[in-house]
Amino acid sequence: MIQIAEDIDLVMQQAQEAFLAYRKCSASDKAAFLKAIVAQIEALGDTLIQTAMEESNLPLARLTGERGRTTGQLLAFAKLLEAGDWVQASIDTGDPDRKPVAKPDLRKMMQPVGPVVVFGASNFPLAFSTAGGDTASALAAGCSVVVKSHPGHPRTSLLVAGAINKAIAQSNVPEHVFQHVADHSIQAGQSLILHPVTKAAAFTGSYTGGKALFDLANQREEPIPFFAEMGSINPVVVLPEVLQTKKDLPATLASSIMLGVGQFCTNPGLILVLEESGLDEFLDGLSTTILAGSGGKMLHTGIASSYKTRKKEALSQDGITTLATVVSVQEDDITGTPAIATVSASDFIDNSVLKEEVFGPYSLIVKCKSKEELSAVITSLKGQLTATLFGTEQELGNYTDIAELLIQRCGRLIYNGVPTGVEVCKSMQHGGPFPSTTDSRFTSVGTDAIYRFVRPVSYQDCPDAFLPVELRNENTLSIMRVINGIWTNNSIKIR
Amino acid sequence: MIQIAEDIDLVMQQAQEAFLAYRKCSASDKAAFLKAIVAQIEALGDTLIQTAMEESNLPLARLTGERGRTTGQLLAFAKLLEAGDWVQASIDTGDPDRKPVAKPDLRKMMQPVGPVVVFGASNFPLAFSTAGGDTASALAAGCSVVVKSHPGHPRTSLLVAGAINKAIAQSNVPEHVFQHVADHSIQAGQSLILHPVTKAAAFTGSYTGGKALFDLANQREEPIPFFAEMGSINPVVVLPEVLQTKKDLPATLASSIMLGVGQFCTNPGLILVLEESGLDEFLDGLSTTILAGSGGKMLHTGIASSYKTRKKEALSQDGITTLATVVSVQEDDITGTPAIATVSASDFIDNSVLKEEVFGPYSLIVKCKSKEELSAVITSLKGQLTATLFGTEQELGNYTDIAELLIQRCGRLIYNGVPTGVEVCKSMQHGGPFPSTTDSRFTSVGTDAIYRFVRPVSYQDCPDAFLPVELRNENTLSIMRVINGIWTNNSIKIR
Repeated sequence: MIQIAEDIDLVMQQAQEAFLAYRKCSASDKAAFLKAIVAQIEALGDTLIQTAMEESNLPLARLTGERGRTTGQLLAFAKLLEAGDWVQASIDTGDPDRKPVAKPDLRKMMQPVGPVVVFGASNFPLAFSTAGGDTASALAAGCSVVVKSHPGHPRTSLLVAGAINKAIAQSNVPEHVFQHVADHSIQAGQSLILHPVTKAAAFTGSYTGGKALFDLANQREEPIPFFAEMGSINPVVVLPEVLQTKKDLPATLASSIMLGVGQFCTNPGLILVLEESGLDEFLDGLSTTILAGSGGKMLHTGIASSYKTRKKEALSQDGITTLATVVSVQEDDITGTPAIATVSASDFIDNSVLKEEVFGPYSLIVKCKSKEELSAVITSLKGQLTATLFGTEQELGNYTDIAELLIQRCGRLIYNGVPTGVEVCKSMQHGGPFPSTTDSRFTSVGTDAIYRFVRPVSYQDCPDAFLPVELRNENTLSIMRVINGIWTNNSIKIR
Repeated sequence: MIQIAEDIDLVMQQAQEAFLAYRKCSASDKAAFLKAIVAQIEALGDTLIQTAMEESNLPLARLTGERGRTTGQLLAFAKLLEAGDWVQASIDTGDPDRKPVAKPDLRKMMQPVGPVVVFGASNFPLAFSTAGGDTASALAAGCSVVVKSHPGHPRTSLLVAGAINKAIAQSNVPEHVFQHVADHSIQAGQSLILHPVTKAAAFTGSYTGGKALFDLANQREEPIPFFAEMGSINPVVVLPEVLQTKKDLPATLASSIMLGVGQFCTNPGLILVLEESGLDEFLDGLSTTILAGSGGKMLHTGIASSYKTRKKEALSQDGITTLATVVSVQEDDITGTPAIATVSASDFIDNSVLKEEVFGPYSLIVKCKSKEELSAVITSLKGQLTATLFGTEQELGNYTDIAELLIQRCGRLIYNGVPTGVEVCKSMQHGGPFPSTTDSRFTSVGTDAIYRFVRPVSYQDCPDAFLPVELRNENTLSIMRVINGIWTNNSIKIR
């Protein structure tokens, strides 16, 4: 039995009180709060970027871009709250004259679940950490948030937490609507998940860490949703004709493999090809670009060490041929260097080690003798965040069954583009079948991420004055609602 | 380690093949199939009702009504499929000229998760069993379904399964899109949950049974969603003024307690009152109606025996005063007789036994000395399917904080009406915080029940011809879609 630490208990009690108060804040109060966080993050200026660079080894341009993504996400949720439609309001009006029994008036909308715990990601010290997508979507949903700061970037996390606290002081929201826990012990994380007032949690990281916390969340007296993004090898299928028509494909793919020293969740770790003409040229092209890469500093020595170990293990499997590998000039403990290898479909299918993520600039090319073998390879894969299909229009038409197999194993299917780069918008799905995430029914990127932290509540025969504003007869917010099965932003006329 | 039975393995392999084929069926094929099931159920005529009566002890009128509800649900899902909007299509069009990187075209919609296992409910041999709400919503979602027949009504289940099989033969859907497992062993149920192709399951029944299967579903190598509805005591708050104005309230509430021999999941098992004038008259009225009730045959002897045991246990707790109890004329092992009791708020709050469901015509009245005590009682409750508030317009205004506390513990809040009677419509929420259900984010009643069996899939830069019809530029189905953040049923003009 894990004991809940005393300080964590205090934090969660405060989170519960803040949640109850935050429920009473209007959507515009919440939107203004998210905008105030943006202003405070921007006010941190170079200090934030410099600190994040020191802690993560990520370059200036990347972190500047990531800051823009972070503030962009917060603003997107502010806009969502201002528009108001996201609550999925639905109304079925009553009919007292219905036989044999009167029909009640029912009105339903999404409401926040309660206090949410967020575990930041090491590979996104800004966009998926303290004020990242999880925090932004939970605050937008109306939940109070407790962030456990990531040990990989504690100072960056503290700076952002300070910015959020300043925004709280300026806004019409309760003091403890956001809290920052700097305790990096395993027990602190466990306590946060186990505390009875915690109603959901979000995590981005390793399978081992994510799965352990997922199990803990399910073993509670009251199980809670635990959203973990845990890794994916993101299969890329390259069809034969496109090898001829898209001469820049090897360079494009190799760049995607090496982007950010391969430390993206959507890194293309698996490339599936058919043994047809043009393949050798494609592999040569890949090798050339990979060999021109020098690698780079990884996020921290733990990740660099793990990459070396996992890469070595993968490259030593039966049937593996190393196609290109870069040897580091300086043999330090932080640099990650790119490597690619090939394997036959049959050797791949039977080897579970080859289906695990090698987090870093690494990819494995699986050579398939036929479409049937390609199908068998795909069928042998676990759930993925993304899958990609490169092909000419003509051959995409001949491979719709392959697309169908891919769709059943991923959250997002990409045509003729690299999987790295996750657009932040409503139509993004960043969440795939297990083990890429613990719950493929939700996304952690884009505005639909808000739905992780809400549940529907129905009001039956509730007098108009006591309904939430979104469900009243008069549609003062002009939101889209489903009224008696019809989409409309009209008000309900009282007879 | 639980072994998967051989016959179950065959069933699930067939379910997987059928799922892949069913994915290719159009929405209108699926809708026609659901309508064909309705026709075949109706064609069973009196035989079905008579068989269900024999197996469940439920009366003719109730089962006739329940058949109407069953076919009504199937038709509602057919209508949903014909309308098409339910897929939540969302499109963000691309912008190749965006700097610093081109914006991809992203299109997202709901897709079926895969084969679904359904465990029927004993208290709804038609509407929540073989062709009930779980089966109807899973088939509408595009999933294949395997029903484990309920041991309480095996012949009823077999009749309905036969009707569905006839509908399959008449429809453009794969043979094994629905399968019926008549094996009532615990191992069969476990095998169905543990089989790797099973992607979700739905259950209605006891906490013990539901929780055991929920744990099994989460302990799989690939955990799957397990939707269990497991019991609820459905607190009813009666405010003081309404005691004066609503003189039929005692009779109305007592009737709700005794409806269907108390065998409804929304049975009002807990009534919270304030010790103010009018209370004695209210309790007298309740007692009078309860004592006029004779009870009735319960679903089966197991439920009747469990009711007797649980009622006895509840009535023997410290501080409990039996207010009215009916003694059965014939001391048989199937009749359930009504009983109500009272307890003080303080005795209630500290006693976990009193917070458990007593499945049958039983209710406990908790007397609170003040609004603060009432709040404390509500705060001590676990998650509920419903909560109810009886009050005059005036006092509802004074008790909005009580409504707020109730909302946080339930899926549906009812004003001035009994909790029994679950309207089948989009705005219904039948699913509350744990342990009333395992996942409060979904409903098992109403058309939104379909969302239990789908997940969103995004297509990035997919050529129009290869998109599902719901996501193509031309909106041939005229469904509502969110295009670049705007709700519309327009097509997308190609520039």
